[in-house]
Amino acid sequence: MSDINKVVLAYSGGLDTSVILKWLQDTYQCEVVTFTADLGQGEELEPARQKALQFGIKPENIFIDDLREEFVRDFVFPMFRANTVYEGEYLLGTSIARPLIAKRQIEIANLTGADAVSHGATGKGNDQVRFELGYYGLKPDVKVIAPWREWDLLSREKLLAYAEKNGIPVDMKHKNGGAPYSMDANLLHISFEGRHLENPSAEAEESMWRWSVSPEAAPDAPEYLDVEFERGDIVALNGVRLKAHEVLAKLNELGGKHGIGRLDLVENRYVGMKSRGCYETPGGTIILKAHRAIESITLDREVAHLKDDLMPRYASMIYNGYWWAPERKALQTLIDYTQQSVNGWVRLKLYKGNVIVVSRDSKTNSLFDMNIATFDDDGGAYNQADAGGFIKLNALRMRIAGRMNK
Amino acid sequence: MSDINKVVLAYSGGLDTSVILKWLQDTYQCEVVTFTADLGQGEELEPARQKALQFGIKPENIFIDDLREEFVRDFVFPMFRANTVYEGEYLLGTSIARPLIAKRQIEIANLTGADAVSHGATGKGNDQVRFELGYYGLKPDVKVIAPWREWDLLSREKLLAYAEKNGIPVDMKHKNGGAPYSMDANLLHISFEGRHLENPSAEAEESMWRWSVSPEAAPDAPEYLDVEFERGDIVALNGVRLKAHEVLAKLNELGGKHGIGRLDLVENRYVGMKSRGCYETPGGTIILKAHRAIESITLDREVAHLKDDLMPRYASMIYNGYWWAPERKALQTLIDYTQQSVNGWVRLKLYKGNVIVVSRDSKTNSLFDMNIATFDDDGGAYNQADAGGFIKLNALRMRIAGRMNK
Amino acid sequence: MSDINKVVLAYSGGLDTSVILKWLQDTYQCEVVTFTADLGQGEELEPARQKALQFGIKPENIFIDDLREEFVRDFVFPMFRANTVYEGEYLLGTSIARPLIAKRQIEIANLTGADAVSHGATGKGNDQVRFELGYYGLKPDVKVIAPWREWDLLSREKLLAYAEKNGIPVDMKHKNGGAPYSMDANLLHISFEGRHLENPSAEAEESMWRWSVSPEAAPDAPEYLDVEFERGDIVALNGVRLKAHEVLAKLNELGGKHGIGRLDLVENRYVGMKSRGCYETPGGTIILKAHRAIESITLDREVAHLKDDLMPRYASMIYNGYWWAPERKALQTLIDYTQQSVNGWVRLKLYKGNVIVVSRDSKTNSLFDMNIATFDDDGGAYNQADAGGFIKLNALRMRIAGRMNK
Amino acid sequence: MSDINKVVLAYSGGLDTSVILKWLQDTYQCEVVTFTADLGQGEELEPARQKALQFGIKPENIFIDDLREEFVRDFVFPMFRANTVYEGEYLLGTSIARPLIAKRQIEIANLTGADAVSHGATGKGNDQVRFELGYYGLKPDVKVIAPWREWDLLSREKLLAYAEKNGIPVDMKHKNGGAPYSMDANLLHISFEGRHLENPSAEAEESMWRWSVSPEAAPDAPEYLDVEFERGDIVALNGVRLKAHEVLAKLNELGGKHGIGRLDLVENRYVGMKSRGCYETPGGTIILKAHRAIESITLDREVAHLKDDLMPRYASMIYNGYWWAPERKALQTLIDYTQQSVNGWVRLKLYKGNVIVVSRDSKTNSLFDMNIATFDDDGGAYNQADAGGFIKLNALRMRIAGRMNK
Repeated sequence: MSDINKVVLAYSGGLDTSVILKWLQDTYQCEVVTFTADLGQGEELEPARQKALQFGIKPENIFIDDLREEFVRDFVFPMFRANTVYEGEYLLGTSIARPLIAKRQIEIANLTGADAVSHGATGKGNDQVRFELGYYGLKPDVKVIAPWREWDLLSREKLLAYAEKNGIPVDMKHKNGGAPYSMDANLLHISFEGRHLENPSAEAEESMWRWSVSPEAAPDAPEYLDVEFERGDIVALNGVRLKAHEVLAKLNELGGKHGIGRLDLVENRYVGMKSRGCYETPGGTIILKAHRAIESITLDREVAHLKDDLMPRYASMIYNGYWWAPERKALQTLIDYTQQSVNGWVRLKLYKGNVIVVSRDSKTNSLFDMNIATFDDDGGAYNQADAGGFIKLNALRMRIAGRMNK
Repeated sequence: MSDINKVVLAYSGGLDTSVILKWLQDTYQCEVVTFTADLGQGEELEPARQKALQFGIKPENIFIDDLREEFVRDFVFPMFRANTVYEGEYLLGTSIARPLIAKRQIEIANLTGADAVSHGATGKGNDQVRFELGYYGLKPDVKVIAPWREWDLLSREKLLAYAEKNGIPVDMKHKNGGAPYSMDANLLHISFEGRHLENPSAEAEESMWRWSVSPEAAPDAPEYLDVEFERGDIVALNGVRLKAHEVLAKLNELGGKHGIGRLDLVENRYVGMKSRGCYETPGGTIILKAHRAIESITLDREVAHLKDDLMPRYASMIYNGYWWAPERKALQTLIDYTQQSVNGWVRLKLYKGNVIVVSRDSKTNSLFDMNIATFDDDGGAYNQADAGGFIKLNALRMRIAGRMNK
Repeated sequence: MSDINKVVLAYSGGLDTSVILKWLQDTYQCEVVTFTADLGQGEELEPARQKALQFGIKPENIFIDDLREEFVRDFVFPMFRANTVYEGEYLLGTSIARPLIAKRQIEIANLTGADAVSHGATGKGNDQVRFELGYYGLKPDVKVIAPWREWDLLSREKLLAYAEKNGIPVDMKHKNGGAPYSMDANLLHISFEGRHLENPSAEAEESMWRWSVSPEAAPDAPEYLDVEFERGDIVALNGVRLKAHEVLAKLNELGGKHGIGRLDLVENRYVGMKSRGCYETPGGTIILKAHRAIESITLDREVAHLKDDLMPRYASMIYNGYWWAPERKALQTLIDYTQQSVNGWVRLKLYKGNVIVVSRDSKTNSLFDMNIATFDDDGGAYNQADAGGFIKLNALRMRIAGRMNK
Repeated sequence: MSDINKVVLAYSGGLDTSVILKWLQDTYQCEVVTFTADLGQGEELEPARQKALQFGIKPENIFIDDLREEFVRDFVFPMFRANTVYEGEYLLGTSIARPLIAKRQIEIANLTGADAVSHGATGKGNDQVRFELGYYGLKPDVKVIAPWREWDLLSREKLLAYAEKNGIPVDMKHKNGGAPYSMDANLLHISFEGRHLENPSAEAEESMWRWSVSPEAAPDAPEYLDVEFERGDIVALNGVRLKAHEVLAKLNELGGKHGIGRLDLVENRYVGMKSRGCYETPGGTIILKAHRAIESITLDREVAHLKDDLMPRYASMIYNGYWWAPERKALQTLIDYTQQSVNGWVRLKLYKGNVIVVSRDSKTNSLFDMNIATFDDDGGAYNQADAGGFIKLNALRMRIAGRMNK
């Protein structure tokens, strides 16, 4: 195990990754570089710096980066261009953050001359796969240390004992409260797993949710929201131009206020098991609805259907951790190409868990032709007789089959 | 035009199909058989009989059938087994009724020796295609009369004039109110098109909706609902076993009460134009959500993904009118095969427009293995070290590429 | 019919399009612009000019263009980048030429201020669709005249009579020989339909084939051929750099000499019927085989599979005439993106109908790693133990299912 | 390692599996059950029994089964119903045999009360995956021993030394000849990997091929062959009804004689690397060509296209070892459903590597309608004017886009 010189650890500053930090130092006798990212999870990052220093990490080996804008602009928005949903429900909030963390870790490894990277994901979940496929895809010969697959601290008790033995501060809630939910948060969502969610027939506790009020507790008055799109991405809310991460932050605020974006589901992990998760994705839920609406008037039918047919596959790529794989990039070129015409606005009504599309239009790219769609006289814009031939030829193969099989 | 002897008309008893009835008699000088179906549209059917008699239709040529059970059991439920949604939103309420009407019309044509069939769908819409692909698929040499594509009554005014001239009663609302919405209703939904909906940037009027209250007007207290599935179909609600159409009727009642299932969208018609439609599908919205939830614990991951990948194509088949085509039937065999294991129950919470899954389970077919999914010690049920090899081999192609491209 | 001012006719100079030329002049009383393209069909084009002049076409209204390079570079090669085959067999030789002809016709219409275009394709075939979808896609309001769908010259006899009456020269073979094969030729292929091919249980006559010898008549000695690719396109043969159309011409010569590329099949037309066709595609057959071989060592597995999954859809788009549709263009961006790495060479052996790949390599983009693939000791490049975990997790869902269903 | 009581070994009687047999006895101190299958590989099986007895295997623990008919009837034929080809070239000869071996091994394990199974596939290849996914799918808790992933005999030299030390007879060819090709044979094919094939730019040696003559050495006279299909499977050759395995044996004989079915390619393994393989699949090559031909006149267009779209996915399932997975079974129901109408005959011409379809017909299920396809007067069977409307509506979305984007 002495063949590791320097390792870049994805470090949150929390209990688990602090234990990992110490364990890496002890086990590999190697230099540790900590990397802490602000992805909008809503936590202070400076405490992570202090903790790292306490573990003896050199100041130049402590990286704390605000990645919020890059996260939304280059990861979240490109994903929503495809109306991406995994297994009909899940908006991929955790999945889409991992490739960015992996990319930045590898950049830091290159910068600091590290030969290894490490993360705090367990051996049962998807995140280990997402991190490591990113690492290997971006730096094929990097060494990967996945402590949860290697050490003997698998139970909560052992982990706490190790922490105490090594002077790693443990919150009261960890000490007393039994196993906490396993949570992950970033600007797109917060997720909950474990604890009594492990029983899919048990209803989630109201107290678990963090970012959104319940629909019941949401305001009694609906709120209208105007959303403006350029090339498939939201660029303005209620007429105010915003940067990508500002858009999402604002939508989270609005969505959370109106009880929007809670989800309780059982999903199929890439590693082969079913798992139950609860998610709050207020802003993402609004984006999805609005994006479909703007596409509905600006996208050609067959292009839209091609995208719909490919979406589940694209979603699986992201869910399974293949963001940096060539097939995801190839598919993205297609998706991005289609978004050139996706410009216009959508008006939404937010009310107690509902995101309701009430109108939509595009000055520059509408494909909605009132003259043709009308039930009134269209002045010859559409020749109804054409439909006869259209149907006849579309039916021809069935008619021939019917006749010849008699 | 004298080559038609007897025509079976899909006859609602309303103004348009009454005009068609008369027009057929005048134009083709042929015997007319009327067929009126109860698909749960919520209208009296006996008036249709009276009107038909007034037009001189022989009693033995008047067919009035209650098709509600067949409709839900053999059309709606099979469609929902695939979690079918067109263009991400539309639940295909109109599309799925047309093939049954076409089938019954052809049966009646065979029964009565008719050589032609006729319908009241316009030349701009999807329904003409759905009817006629059904006709041709089931009786290849049948003659099809589509009055809207043939006659010169294209404007509302001409139609009303024709009606008046021929003593066809016209409601006051038709006379005074300007063009009404174009509506279609059956047990699965009611749809609205036309009128000021033709402008996609105009919000729908609250007064338009028929089956559901608005979320705002729905009860302040949520309601729980237990749904039981057998082979992918709902067989019981709150512990009470029901027939297929009873299930849907009950879900419509509950959904409508809680403001569930309203939809406002722009869709791509098969005939090539975009059109704006509003839909109320209270029961269907509940079925979709519940069906995904029961599948989430009873369906294998890859089977579920295969279904998801094929769903948009299956939805297009139905939307475009290919229910009776061999490719739809082939796909249905696959879908139905997968539903053998889809048995169990789902608990839902209905509240002001929301259908919230709160728990789900299957006594006989759950694939959710708590021992493996747990964050606690799993007693060796899952070997975390396996994940290392899993990731390594999944990354191998990317690692080789990275190395060789250096 | 007086609303046509000027029409651009796709004019081959042959009997059929000459009759059309005259018929257009008589029927529409309009100015006719003739457009004759050299797509490598192997016919003199100057006679077409002479004939056009004889019909009174103004010299400035006669367009004769050599489109061979554009045809292969911008249509044939892009298509082969996807390994495109329709229904498992057909290499789309006719389909891929139509969009170019349509495009050039529209360019000429714009140049000459013409308001209409016309072609000589029948009302039963695919070509009318391919032409007209191109016309409408590129110039939405253009008027289209499809004489075969309009006139009363549907039988061969009537057509010949019309020609004779109007002084249009008819070859002896047309007069005496009965109906000829319907043929279409360009640099990619020559096709045969009709005549006794209309019976799919009749073997094609050896005398029908034009471009290739039979395998039996081909040389007894095989010939090796080195093919070099850049970004998925062939750029050199046996070390000699060639332009796109020169590549294809040379491959046709070699393929034809060795009896390569004959095909006899029944295909499904877009207009709904099955039809039997025979094709000679010597060069295309070689390209397909070579392209798959170079991709086999330069393309990532998942990218290759994504392409394979989408290929039939892409083939149908081209077959059905949607080259200029947005969904084809979107798919092309994906296909072209993948070809960046498709550089290298393939060695083939041509022998009596066979195209045999004997070796392949890429100096710059090979993904074939001998160190890993070897059966010998790989020095640790691949850790066989990884496979255990890989299999275990891939099997997990089936093992859980097996256990829980007991 | 003492926790194995009885293991069922897939035993060929050759050097490698004999070493494994001994190694299992030594390493696990367990009872070994040998299973040797006749899949048409063309080797004597009785020597395997003798060898097993020499290793002290009890007679009741020696299983030698003739699985040829089951293999072709229940595995090869169902696969060909989908026109299955992996990566455009490979006919899956090895892949399709593994699931049957795995199934029989598990049956024997259940019969003999064995708790483990073992195979001789290496840790780098696909076969280990195919075997083990089969084992786990059919008996979730079975223990799997994969000696090549466990032992230290990875190099050829060590293996030979182990053999000699333990008195396992080693052929002269093994001793002198350096590493042999890695070969696998069954009724569908024989494969070659390794040795100088490891260099993809080296041409395969003529002496390597076993089952087929080279095209050059094949007879100078072509041979016609009549093939009869029922429900997608071949049931008779030249009018003689045969069982499934007899059909394939006969086709192998004919194909081999005419130099048909050699293949040299680089494929993408499931475990992540590219590998070069050569294959002889004489009969399979003929089946594929004939099956496509019979489908061309008996299968509906959209059904055929649906199959084509799904085929690469189905091929990957088989290649990757998922024959016993629920998604493969689901897809098979669809494939099998479509084959109900695939009845009729195809006439082929075999000549020096070529399989040429010359005619095809179906008395009962032809969808080829000469009256409609004809270039002659069709007596109104097809109304050419219909095509105008068909094209107009198919072009509508593009025309609207063109107009609105101006």
